[in-house]
Amino acid sequence: MRISELSARCGVAIPTIKYYLREGMLHQGVQTAATRAEYDESHLRRLRLIRALLDVGRLSVSSIKKVVAAVDDESLPIHEMLGIAHYALSPGAQPEPGEDWQQARAEVDRLVEELGWDVTPDAPTRDELAQTLVRMRQLDMAVDLAPYVEAARKLVSEVEMDKIPFDGPRDAAVEALVLGTVLYGRAFDALRRMAQESESAARLGS
Amino acid sequence: MRISELSARCGVAIPTIKYYLREGMLHQGVQTAATRAEYDESHLRRLRLIRALLDVGRLSVSSIKKVVAAVDDESLPIHEMLGIAHYALSPGAQPEPGEDWQQARAEVDRLVEELGWDVTPDAPTRDELAQTLVRMRQLDMAVDLAPYVEAARKLVSEVEMDKIPFDGPRDAAVEALVLGTVLYGRAFDALRRMAQESESAARLGS
Repeated sequence: MRISELSARCGVAIPTIKYYLREGMLHQGVQTAATRAEYDESHLRRLRLIRALLDVGRLSVSSIKKVVAAVDDESLPIHEMLGIAHYALSPGAQPEPGEDWQQARAEVDRLVEELGWDVTPDAPTRDELAQTLVRMRQLDMAVDLAPYVEAARKLVSEVEMDKIPFDGPRDAAVEALVLGTVLYGRAFDALRRMAQESESAARLGS
Repeated sequence: MRISELSARCGVAIPTIKYYLREGMLHQGVQTAATRAEYDESHLRRLRLIRALLDVGRLSVSSIKKVVAAVDDESLPIHEMLGIAHYALSPGAQPEPGEDWQQARAEVDRLVEELGWDVTPDAPTRDELAQTLVRMRQLDMAVDLAPYVEAARKLVSEVEMDKIPFDGPRDAAVEALVLGTVLYGRAFDALRRMAQESESAARLGS
């Protein structure tokens, strides 16, 4: 298909497609004349991935370039490729000076070890969780992560990972991981607050 | 205690405390001299609530004023007071023109009814969930909310609502609801992504 049809089918403007081509985020089409190139389904799939990372994942263009480079590097094992996309989604958390942070981070590391979870030592999720624990302690909250660990484990192992097409094109696996993580995360958050409202009504009478 | 001690104990600067007093978000102390007033534990508790809404809930000052007015209005049933705080936490979602939105919103309303959940028709969570469904459909995702509904229901009814001190001061109940909703929401989100990394490693070998 020509660039105009590619643009129409994926809803991305032609100048934006040309920008992705220049930046190497989208592979070149097959040149059929001096000013004409042919594109195929692989271009559509890549544009779909870029839009998902941009609109749903809210990643910056520089983060998207890293993810796309990992998708294109076929020598990278699929688990590491998914990890790069996954880590790019993390809001991140800066370690804070002081003992509170060190204690919280040590607690997270202990938890991961006790659970036997295979999470790299420099995963940004470790710092995210540590930061949340620091805030909870500063606010004198009683902290009990166990029910949340169990809910996360159950959802991920029984439902979410079955939806990732590990055996299809690499783009499709990354797209499914990013969309599933972000959009089902939002859905769960809304459902949890609905359940809170309903349970509060049941307990207090409305 | 004097305003200087109040400031030291809650970590809020004196000019900020004076601002909250002027805006009616914090009740006046007992005047003991022309330029001196005494404050007590109720002031500390209120300042703690305001900081929680501001720092953890990321509410605007105008939203905090509404929440604080609901806490102070003792004629308001506790369920409604909690609802005002709860709704203020919602990122909100604007209904979008077109049939996709209407279908998604109808689907959410049907789901709430089937679950028998007591959620008001104008709860912002209904629009939030509808917006997420619209995005999922636009991206051709297969949508199955059931496991998320079950996880949310279980967490809320078996764990979260037991932590709200419904029989204590109204400030304390609102504070517990807001902190629990926001901070355990963040903790769950990090734990879910850790579980995804671990499960991906287990399935693909790392």
